[in-house]
Amino acid sequence: MGGSSPCASCKLLRSRCAKDCIFAPYFPSDDPHKFAIVHKVFGASNVNKMLQELAVEMRADAVSSLVYEANARVRDPVYGCVGNISYLQNKISELQMQLALAHTEMLCVQMQQESVLAMPMPIHQDDSYIIFFFFYLKE
Amino acid sequence: MGGSSPCASCKLLRSRCAKDCIFAPYFPSDDPHKFAIVHKVFGASNVNKMLQELAVEMRADAVSSLVYEANARVRDPVYGCVGNISYLQNKISELQMQLALAHTEMLCVQMQQESVLAMPMPIHQDDSYIIFFFFYLKE
Repeated sequence: MGGSSPCASCKLLRSRCAKDCIFAPYFPSDDPHKFAIVHKVFGASNVNKMLQELAVEMRADAVSSLVYEANARVRDPVYGCVGNISYLQNKISELQMQLALAHTEMLCVQMQQESVLAMPMPIHQDDSYIIFFFFYLKE
Repeated sequence: MGGSSPCASCKLLRSRCAKDCIFAPYFPSDDPHKFAIVHKVFGASNVNKMLQELAVEMRADAVSSLVYEANARVRDPVYGCVGNISYLQNKISELQMQLALAHTEMLCVQMQQESVLAMPMPIHQDDSYIIFFFFYLKE
């Protein structure tokens, strides 16, 4: 942010933090790790270029997604974010299978219910006792 | 791979492709776009460092995930891969809701079925005729 309090990026890169520093709004000096991790994975020069190519109102979201990706890459140097994507895709396949199973079960229960309702119903045991008792008395 | 046929990385960086070039096994000269996109997003120097830190047998997977991430970032400069993650997370929430709904519906149908089966069943109209006819003949 210029002068005596350089942003985290300018502090790390040991450069003068100009008034119009492109990093300053997103990398405050009190959170040095945020810039350090993005710099480690993407490089300050690339991040600078990426931000330059975006409208100002989109830059905060872009920085958030870059920080997310960089953290994922540091946590998992082989798969990074793509490991999360793979996990989520597997989770979706699993849920889709569970949903298909639930629909099949529902169809079975409904068909079972329909066949029970369509069946000629046997007289309930208690009702037949009443009927026989009625005729017994009548006689 | 050294000498007359430099890998895509060394071609782009205009450097001599040494026999032990770290990029050569993953960035063949006939696919220049693959390295170009990774270089644009992560920078050759960072990719070099990331590969150096990994065991040789993990490097192919790491390159694949870096290429995937870089492509996602070029397609969507604001959200990159994180856009995919966000989409997949929403899809999971949607499927979890559908699954919860399917389970609730199943429970309702089962309860309905149980209450129908537990109900004293009314005598089937045709059966009652038979019973009355039986007693009529008996009298």
